[in-house]
Amino acid sequence: MNIYDVSKKAGVSIATVSRVLNGSPNVSDRTRNLVLKVMDELGYTPNVFARGLGLGTIQTIGIMCSDSSDPYLAHAIYYLEQGLRGYGYDSILCCTGNSLENKQKYLELLRSKKVDAIILAGSKFIEPKLRDNDYITEAAQEIPIMLVNGFLEGNNICCTLCDDRSATHEAAGKLIASGCRSILYLYTSRSYSGMGKLHGYQDALGGCGLPVRKDLIYQCPKDVLAARDLLLKLHTSGLFFDAVMTSDDTLAVGAVKYAHATRRSIPDDLSIIGYNNSSYAVCTDPELTSIDSRIEALCATTINTLMIVFNGGNAPSRTTIAADLIKRATTKF
Amino acid sequence: MNIYDVSKKAGVSIATVSRVLNGSPNVSDRTRNLVLKVMDELGYTPNVFARGLGLGTIQTIGIMCSDSSDPYLAHAIYYLEQGLRGYGYDSILCCTGNSLENKQKYLELLRSKKVDAIILAGSKFIEPKLRDNDYITEAAQEIPIMLVNGFLEGNNICCTLCDDRSATHEAAGKLIASGCRSILYLYTSRSYSGMGKLHGYQDALGGCGLPVRKDLIYQCPKDVLAARDLLLKLHTSGLFFDAVMTSDDTLAVGAVKYAHATRRSIPDDLSIIGYNNSSYAVCTDPELTSIDSRIEALCATTINTLMIVFNGGNAPSRTTIAADLIKRATTKF
Repeated sequence: MNIYDVSKKAGVSIATVSRVLNGSPNVSDRTRNLVLKVMDELGYTPNVFARGLGLGTIQTIGIMCSDSSDPYLAHAIYYLEQGLRGYGYDSILCCTGNSLENKQKYLELLRSKKVDAIILAGSKFIEPKLRDNDYITEAAQEIPIMLVNGFLEGNNICCTLCDDRSATHEAAGKLIASGCRSILYLYTSRSYSGMGKLHGYQDALGGCGLPVRKDLIYQCPKDVLAARDLLLKLHTSGLFFDAVMTSDDTLAVGAVKYAHATRRSIPDDLSIIGYNNSSYAVCTDPELTSIDSRIEALCATTINTLMIVFNGGNAPSRTTIAADLIKRATTKF
Repeated sequence: MNIYDVSKKAGVSIATVSRVLNGSPNVSDRTRNLVLKVMDELGYTPNVFARGLGLGTIQTIGIMCSDSSDPYLAHAIYYLEQGLRGYGYDSILCCTGNSLENKQKYLELLRSKKVDAIILAGSKFIEPKLRDNDYITEAAQEIPIMLVNGFLEGNNICCTLCDDRSATHEAAGKLIASGCRSILYLYTSRSYSGMGKLHGYQDALGGCGLPVRKDLIYQCPKDVLAARDLLLKLHTSGLFFDAVMTSDDTLAVGAVKYAHATRRSIPDDLSIIGYNNSSYAVCTDPELTSIDSRIEALCATTINTLMIVFNGGNAPSRTTIAADLIKRATTKF
């Protein structure tokens, strides 16, 4: 339902509908009343910026993220805002937190403002229970929805993903090839991306004939000291591990601090791999080997895809980008 | 110039002006023409969201920052967005970079969109040459401008500041009291906040009868490895220093890495103080003593002040918040 539908049904030009919306005096009362009647019949709520500009668009994209102060998401927002600005689009930012209720509320809010599209940044928007994502699928009936590193099938939904599963598969494979046999895995969330990373780790173990041990897989808050303390506790409990893989660099920094506290030598006695290749990766001594999830490329591709959608082109529903393994000093390879 | 001025001059209610703006048929042609004529005479461009809502506001604040991926600014944006949302305001985000030309362009863009206010986050918006800030003073004639940790005098400009100068004064004083005599100072920029921090360090030296030595003060990119390499170079050149104070935690992390590389013992042989008390502060071993610039309090106060402005109250043009010195393991005190 847009200005074109109103124009067609009323049998007047788009410019005339636009004039009515703008309260211009250069429209006859008869035409004005006709256009207002058609809008009423069609249930058309005019897009507010469009009124101002006399266009069918407010040139504004809604960006939703759980928390813009998270370093990964902060970079995503930066690249998205800059990229969209390059095409003349404003970005309205919504930090939703993690509750499903708030995510739904914010999506509804952005829809009510008639933004041109909504970008969901970060894989936390996709809930494990498929039904919990229905509000996204429904919104996509009216407005393009772009997912950055999340996946959901549906009309008018386009996903740009980092191939997290292949990345951790490759990295765990290299740890095994370098002699590690007891690779502890720390992850922050069971999001789409989080599960992909975990499965890649499990794929590598399976491929090398090693067992997937539940006592080597732990969830941990995204916090340096929480990760350090968890590893110290496991160490004290007698658990042996010769490598730590993590779903985020902050946890890997915690692993380095654990090794310092227990005087384990990195990488000879303990290998460590981070994820995101963030600025944390160079804060530690030794510096972290980390998987670069290529957030800049993900954001650029998301925007390219959105422009294809806006131009009525055949946009890919799913684009996958390969990660890079950045070798530094916490691994033997 | 707003809907109230139009209402007053036309001698009709705000509701009537709003109805005209909304193209409502429940207005006589005579009244409609009168309101449109007054708007034309006053040069009133109706605020586009206001049209949609029939209000005098688009309930949207423009947030400008140089780079939303910078950890300090990422937190500022998060707290501002969340706080504004609590009052029902949307946030349009603009990442301007550091060129004056781009800052001016974005401010003009936000003004043209008739946002309700503009928040400039971070002290990089205030240029050392006073004349270069005229575009901000001019914009403030039309729209409230809020500065987060920057200072500029002018009507309709409200500044919320961290007392950086007192914070570094106190911290440097404690270093001196703990026996340090050659305190090297690293800073990232000569922004308003950057100069305040530097002056506080100089105040402390002067207060203790120590000379301010130019060979102990250096500018450095906001980058861990750049700071480490700069210190290594100074070390190799024979410069002696027994403490490093920095304007940002990233530089302090670089100082820890420099100490590790040269096997200097922290804090016995070298004391280090960071700034911002960011998550970097706990990444290193030992963990950083750091000055907490209280960005959450700064953002909350900025929003409180803005709401006073919106309600026509007597808003303070300058509010200063004291920093906190967070003691960890890189200092002897």
